[in-house]
Amino acid sequence: MGEVSNLPRVGIVVGSDSDLPPVREAARTLAQLGIEHEVVLASAHRTPDRAVAYARDAAGRGVGVIIAAAGLAAHLPGVLAAHTTLPVIGLPLAVGALGGRDALYSMVQMPPGVPVATVGIGAARNAALLAARILAVGDPEVRRRLDEYVAAMRAAVEREAERLAGVGLEAYLAEREAAGK
Amino acid sequence: MGEVSNLPRVGIVVGSDSDLPPVREAARTLAQLGIEHEVVLASAHRTPDRAVAYARDAAGRGVGVIIAAAGLAAHLPGVLAAHTTLPVIGLPLAVGALGGRDALYSMVQMPPGVPVATVGIGAARNAALLAARILAVGDPEVRRRLDEYVAAMRAAVEREAERLAGVGLEAYLAEREAAGK
Amino acid sequence: MGEVSNLPRVGIVVGSDSDLPPVREAARTLAQLGIEHEVVLASAHRTPDRAVAYARDAAGRGVGVIIAAAGLAAHLPGVLAAHTTLPVIGLPLAVGALGGRDALYSMVQMPPGVPVATVGIGAARNAALLAARILAVGDPEVRRRLDEYVAAMRAAVEREAERLAGVGLEAYLAEREAAGK
Amino acid sequence: MGEVSNLPRVGIVVGSDSDLPPVREAARTLAQLGIEHEVVLASAHRTPDRAVAYARDAAGRGVGVIIAAAGLAAHLPGVLAAHTTLPVIGLPLAVGALGGRDALYSMVQMPPGVPVATVGIGAARNAALLAARILAVGDPEVRRRLDEYVAAMRAAVEREAERLAGVGLEAYLAEREAAGK
Amino acid sequence: MGEVSNLPRVGIVVGSDSDLPPVREAARTLAQLGIEHEVVLASAHRTPDRAVAYARDAAGRGVGVIIAAAGLAAHLPGVLAAHTTLPVIGLPLAVGALGGRDALYSMVQMPPGVPVATVGIGAARNAALLAARILAVGDPEVRRRLDEYVAAMRAAVEREAERLAGVGLEAYLAEREAAGK
Amino acid sequence: MGEVSNLPRVGIVVGSDSDLPPVREAARTLAQLGIEHEVVLASAHRTPDRAVAYARDAAGRGVGVIIAAAGLAAHLPGVLAAHTTLPVIGLPLAVGALGGRDALYSMVQMPPGVPVATVGIGAARNAALLAARILAVGDPEVRRRLDEYVAAMRAAVEREAERLAGVGLEAYLAEREAAGK
Amino acid sequence: MGEVSNLPRVGIVVGSDSDLPPVREAARTLAQLGIEHEVVLASAHRTPDRAVAYARDAAGRGVGVIIAAAGLAAHLPGVLAAHTTLPVIGLPLAVGALGGRDALYSMVQMPPGVPVATVGIGAARNAALLAARILAVGDPEVRRRLDEYVAAMRAAVEREAERLAGVGLEAYLAEREAAGK
Amino acid sequence: MGEVSNLPRVGIVVGSDSDLPPVREAARTLAQLGIEHEVVLASAHRTPDRAVAYARDAAGRGVGVIIAAAGLAAHLPGVLAAHTTLPVIGLPLAVGALGGRDALYSMVQMPPGVPVATVGIGAARNAALLAARILAVGDPEVRRRLDEYVAAMRAAVEREAERLAGVGLEAYLAEREAAGK
Repeated sequence: MGEVSNLPRVGIVVGSDSDLPPVREAARTLAQLGIEHEVVLASAHRTPDRAVAYARDAAGRGVGVIIAAAGLAAHLPGVLAAHTTLPVIGLPLAVGALGGRDALYSMVQMPPGVPVATVGIGAARNAALLAARILAVGDPEVRRRLDEYVAAMRAAVEREAERLAGVGLEAYLAEREAAGK
Repeated sequence: MGEVSNLPRVGIVVGSDSDLPPVREAARTLAQLGIEHEVVLASAHRTPDRAVAYARDAAGRGVGVIIAAAGLAAHLPGVLAAHTTLPVIGLPLAVGALGGRDALYSMVQMPPGVPVATVGIGAARNAALLAARILAVGDPEVRRRLDEYVAAMRAAVEREAERLAGVGLEAYLAEREAAGK
Repeated sequence: MGEVSNLPRVGIVVGSDSDLPPVREAARTLAQLGIEHEVVLASAHRTPDRAVAYARDAAGRGVGVIIAAAGLAAHLPGVLAAHTTLPVIGLPLAVGALGGRDALYSMVQMPPGVPVATVGIGAARNAALLAARILAVGDPEVRRRLDEYVAAMRAAVEREAERLAGVGLEAYLAEREAAGK
Repeated sequence: MGEVSNLPRVGIVVGSDSDLPPVREAARTLAQLGIEHEVVLASAHRTPDRAVAYARDAAGRGVGVIIAAAGLAAHLPGVLAAHTTLPVIGLPLAVGALGGRDALYSMVQMPPGVPVATVGIGAARNAALLAARILAVGDPEVRRRLDEYVAAMRAAVEREAERLAGVGLEAYLAEREAAGK
Repeated sequence: MGEVSNLPRVGIVVGSDSDLPPVREAARTLAQLGIEHEVVLASAHRTPDRAVAYARDAAGRGVGVIIAAAGLAAHLPGVLAAHTTLPVIGLPLAVGALGGRDALYSMVQMPPGVPVATVGIGAARNAALLAARILAVGDPEVRRRLDEYVAAMRAAVEREAERLAGVGLEAYLAEREAAGK
Repeated sequence: MGEVSNLPRVGIVVGSDSDLPPVREAARTLAQLGIEHEVVLASAHRTPDRAVAYARDAAGRGVGVIIAAAGLAAHLPGVLAAHTTLPVIGLPLAVGALGGRDALYSMVQMPPGVPVATVGIGAARNAALLAARILAVGDPEVRRRLDEYVAAMRAAVEREAERLAGVGLEAYLAEREAAGK
Repeated sequence: MGEVSNLPRVGIVVGSDSDLPPVREAARTLAQLGIEHEVVLASAHRTPDRAVAYARDAAGRGVGVIIAAAGLAAHLPGVLAAHTTLPVIGLPLAVGALGGRDALYSMVQMPPGVPVATVGIGAARNAALLAARILAVGDPEVRRRLDEYVAAMRAAVEREAERLAGVGLEAYLAEREAAGK
Repeated sequence: MGEVSNLPRVGIVVGSDSDLPPVREAARTLAQLGIEHEVVLASAHRTPDRAVAYARDAAGRGVGVIIAAAGLAAHLPGVLAAHTTLPVIGLPLAVGALGGRDALYSMVQMPPGVPVATVGIGAARNAALLAARILAVGDPEVRRRLDEYVAAMRAAVEREAERLAGVGLEAYLAEREAAGK
């Protein structure tokens, strides 16, 4: 995707490799948008120095936005945001008995001075799209791709809406089931 | 703040004029950072056309980030985000019996495809700082000011920390009370 | 069902085709009551113009009540209600990590001026019965059918109650299990 | 308001006279819309026969919609809905330590077969507006008044929006404070 | 169980036959304690007259305590308690998206004047044991049996405790698994 | 109140003297019903031996029901219930940041084998009325008084209902305010 | 308190000087127990290096236990615990719209590997007493003082219990009020 | 593990043998750290005397820390803490319909005077590591082992981080899946 950047523009950080499967969709969405990205593992609590170093160096390496995914106490995005002035997107994961509410609160309720841009619990695609929206502020090419993505999304809903209007609920659902959804 | 932009770079939108007092701190923080901004009133439910028009025109008018504050069902940031690909920051307000939890959920749990960058309940300052972080991705001058802001914040905590270490808890609290905090 | 109306009296709207299975029971209940209805797909965020157009035109097309089902931030009923003065019934769906509480709050906590008539999480049958109650206010035929429906429901409980009294708990549960419930 | 009805079209029911102040706004909104209404006291638990009798007789007396307000366990709308097929609007009140969440759940989570149209916690105005939307389905005069109400509401927001755009945030807030808001 | 009573002393009421499986353990516990009981079906909303009649007649028929199990809005115990001065035990069931929290609040938060003795979500055994404790206040034979029950329960824990102390955690868990627990 | 008992029939236990004001209404309601009672202080955590001794001796001293009020972790009723087979009523108090939800859960969610009859948060009157309902199972005189109490309560609501019907909402509220409510 | 230690054994850390008033009671309780302590200011987000340095050096300076108080996202105790193997006590504060629930979850739900010993929301005294219990494991003098503290606490409750038993509820409450409680 | 102690230093207490599987990881973690421990069964409600006796004798038998695991009302750690001044770690378990939130509140919200050191819901490993941190305050050998444990944990994350950086997300996830994770 040379026309936008050869270096990663988005850093996706997780604190445990068990958090990698839920961020896969973020990586894929960024790939769809042709936005270079990297996925790194750095725990806020078990390898804090690695996390801090990542945050400190990110802007210098060309990263424009960081996505940090975490469950439970979910301090990772806050810790990163304390060491960079890049926008940090918090992606709370539904891990453990509180189903992600703990992670959501830990991310969104950051104290005055150090914001985390929080998206929905498990909303990996939205984390990626928010990163794209942020990059698009200063990058017309990203904006163009994002506009295309949104238009495609709209068109897909329009097609489904027409199909539903055409065949009716029961036939539509039968087709949907046949398609394995 | 001519050196960054003469046009508003940040649009702060509220859906009711009773929501203006809580966003004041966002406006002031942006002013401190020298970031041009505007505050507009456009209700997602009572004047939806105005809200839609604002979202559609914002990018063309030079706005880079939208902050939308709302309480209760708090659809405003989502409605704006549906009509622009600018990053939209959702600022949930603690209005009504659920104390802002309703607004938080209504903003952060956006469906796949249309993200809202949510900050804490009533966290107007963080909304502004997140807007600044976003603008700073493509604007070195904003980054410089943001870095200064963060450094000043750090220095203030350092001074307080030294004072506390110097005089001890009881004296520090007495001084704090005397200062009317 | 010519005697009540040849045109749809109830519009059931969903924002994603993944929300169609949970609204099926609403459609079936309306069919049982002989109330014409339509099921349409119109996303508040991905196809907002379609949603707005549906709401604006509904009354003119003879629709008397709209049922809008959604999960997560669940803005759909509120967006529709902003563009019509028809009664809009909100049906929150249990999608995602918050199990429908997000959708419930997003619907029920609408700001002053634009109400959404909210039913229980996933309560598709009740959404349909509420629509029928609303239509029945001005339509004696719908009221008659609704009264029949309620009487049949009561009779079914009475029969079960008699059976339970007759055979006792263990036998009743054995029969129930044998019937595959 | 002879042209719509001389008899009450909306019955507002509370279970305790301590719940009367929060329903006042519902009565006033109905009055603004020229919709005849009555306010009655009938407790689901302390005077259940009175509550049942009210529900049974309401339709025959010309009532088209019932609004039932309650806090705590808040069974009142459900009990009424069990004895009528009129639409019953549940208005949960923020009474006691759970701040209205108990009342909200007790109303909205009605079992299959007996719906309650629930509005927000303490949302008396929305309860009245929902009643008006329901009556308007079969009553063009109510629809006309409702449309006027909505237009006036919109115009008020538009005026505020213009004023804010004209004078700016700080001046607007100063005026607002001076007006005692 | 002639020595305590030939008539049912405890009435277990459910509002839907789908609630019968979870109350089975209550019936069995009462049987273990030799306390006569009956299980009846009477819906607060679908067959309110049956529910009211049951509550009104219960004391005259010799019933001393009523256990009412319900999920969702769970008005049943409150409706019964409004028509009798017998103690009514509310057993909230984990039905639907809110997992029983709705039923718990609907039962325990009864308004002043009409109490419901609420036990834990799904705690059918405790409902039965509470009924036994209540009957035991005026019935030494029930107290004697209850004391035996409690002693047996204690002895079982003591045996398990000794076994665990004897064989250690891993062996104990292996035995437990082998026993199919 | 010699005709029912000269000894306390109800023991009201609190774990801290700061919990005495909220139980006052329980004591007064019992007094109104002519039921002898005692109020004792015994902390489950700070004076566990006193709490255990109270529970062990209560039945022998003629106590028929125990009401235990507590806030926060609120173990008191459970600890008492572990040492007696008398029915123990748990009265959760709204103390601290969780507003009584902690106390409610700690009481109502007792493990299988040891039930606590839980009433609403701060519902002191209902705790007393539940105690009376329990005693009334074996005591016709208590039942008679309880029936009188309920009848008086009903009559009061009836009077208020008539007054409201007679004078209308605004006049009723004016009278109510004049009466200092 | 030379006989236990001349150096601080407990470090109380807050991240903002607005959190100092709620920790005062922790400091006072430690003073009562004669345990040397220090109160320091070090923000996890605004002065992360200071926080990390404190945690790294604490054990070497003789600190045995750290108490970290914070509200909102409340990462402070977790960040400290990541940089020391001293036990870290988390004291969640009721700051902001979520009333401390956010801070509670952020502290208690730490990921596997890095525990935080969490006490109740705002429970500063318990934080201090837990620190004392921890130090007492290896320090008989602290244990002796703690035992004295517990005995005094018990004696105070015993005295209040006797007084209540002696004078009765109303007189006791009158005395309590007179004493300004 | 003679070099640290031949007697159990940590007592792990559960109130029901169904709670043994979730504490297994605590026992294993202590074993990894070479810390002698015992697992005992003592119910706060069904065998309160056994629980009290355990707490009273623990310190004398050389136990330094108690871990108490419980679900539901979860009084066990509080009851133990009332009878010892050893630090008591509360491990809330996700049992029943409230998913462990009840147990969490019951443990963490202990009244002033009797703290429980609470860890996350189901966080058995953290309970053990907290016990080790506490013992390490007075035992350099435990500290040394704990430091090793933490270093090993860090090294594992570092290895995973390097591997992820080396092979990329998709390959890493494929390897992970192949390894059966």
